[in-house]
Amino acid sequence: MSRTVETIISPSLFSQIEYLDQKIVVVIDVLRATSTLCTILANGASSVMTVGDIEHAKALKDEGYLVGGERGGMTVDGFNFGNSPLEYTEKLVADKDLVLTTTNGTKCIDMAKGAKELLIGSFLNLSSICDHIDDMESNVVLLCAGWKDRVNLEDSLLAGAICHELNGDYEFDDASLLCQSSYFIAEDDLFRHMQQSSHFQRLSGHGLDKDIEYCCQIDVLSVLPVLKNSRIVNY
Amino acid sequence: MSRTVETIISPSLFSQIEYLDQKIVVVIDVLRATSTLCTILANGASSVMTVGDIEHAKALKDEGYLVGGERGGMTVDGFNFGNSPLEYTEKLVADKDLVLTTTNGTKCIDMAKGAKELLIGSFLNLSSICDHIDDMESNVVLLCAGWKDRVNLEDSLLAGAICHELNGDYEFDDASLLCQSSYFIAEDDLFRHMQQSSHFQRLSGHGLDKDIEYCCQIDVLSVLPVLKNSRIVNY
Repeated sequence: MSRTVETIISPSLFSQIEYLDQKIVVVIDVLRATSTLCTILANGASSVMTVGDIEHAKALKDEGYLVGGERGGMTVDGFNFGNSPLEYTEKLVADKDLVLTTTNGTKCIDMAKGAKELLIGSFLNLSSICDHIDDMESNVVLLCAGWKDRVNLEDSLLAGAICHELNGDYEFDDASLLCQSSYFIAEDDLFRHMQQSSHFQRLSGHGLDKDIEYCCQIDVLSVLPVLKNSRIVNY
Repeated sequence: MSRTVETIISPSLFSQIEYLDQKIVVVIDVLRATSTLCTILANGASSVMTVGDIEHAKALKDEGYLVGGERGGMTVDGFNFGNSPLEYTEKLVADKDLVLTTTNGTKCIDMAKGAKELLIGSFLNLSSICDHIDDMESNVVLLCAGWKDRVNLEDSLLAGAICHELNGDYEFDDASLLCQSSYFIAEDDLFRHMQQSSHFQRLSGHGLDKDIEYCCQIDVLSVLPVLKNSRIVNY
């Protein structure tokens, strides 16, 4: 029997998902939360806890956690890290437990925590995500974090890339088909395509072009971040 | 100064639109409400009033209006017409005032009635819509009716087609860029692409392939349906 793939193109549409507890959800926030999460685990961190508000993150910092995050794309005062994946080097994070709070990505992880399995997706670990899904038997939800509930291009492109790379008998909903076509157009020059996006222009204005170039790389990491006991760990 | 084009890919996201009273909204429900509306006016009807519920439509029928519509894709008992554009021939509708009620399209017209101008879009009148928008100076919203608040492929494709055909200095939001890429992939064989959509499969199951073929035709009508005094009339 074929499995369904639903793409939620804005978190506001997440309530459309039924039987969440029977589905694998991939949370997607390419610029930059989920790319950063993949990088942190790839660089050897033991776990990352994502929390919704800054005060909670600060309290955890006082307990000894390394804390990172952003609000509106900007670093938070007093945190150890911002939301740039490039800050989280192996030297700084290996074997550590971290805490991360971001504008959109964290909210989606919280929203989908009732899923059968919650994975963290980025272009960096595209094949790890797809190979794992192929090996499972569950229906799939691709949850795009967007930007303040608006559709964004880079998350939709990754949803499309995942649909494109899956290998098996899947039934794609219309949002998945839409993202997939968009990825067909973009795949040869992802970075150039992303330059059109509103979020690119927002981040680029903050001088973060290097982050964006980094986040556009496909399959440079083999991690498979998954939520276990309220923490994101490598599968 | 460039004008903005925002695509609302599901009616649930419509509340994101600000300054509605300063924007042109194009309501899009390709299968079939807006294709049917274009056809009714192209065949000479004086006006079409869209109403939200069946009882209201029936009361207007008792007042002498010709009444058409559907619920869940099916014709309503006692109505003069269903929602197939092919039923509304010139012989039956010329110089008449009609009433239409449909599942998704009517709801969107109601939602957007506070716009500076509300237009009805379909593939059938693509150029009329785009030429008119090019001639105006307002920002633009493309409102996809979808299917019960879910994204659907055919409405997204038309939003993409409109973005593609507009000719001027426009700034497209990410949802518009996404739809536009999807249209690039589909434009050479729209009908084949639409066959992938969930809605196609739903209507096709009702034996309505002819409607769908009809609705995929580009620029066969030159009407420009616009909302004036609570009725849709030719501009």
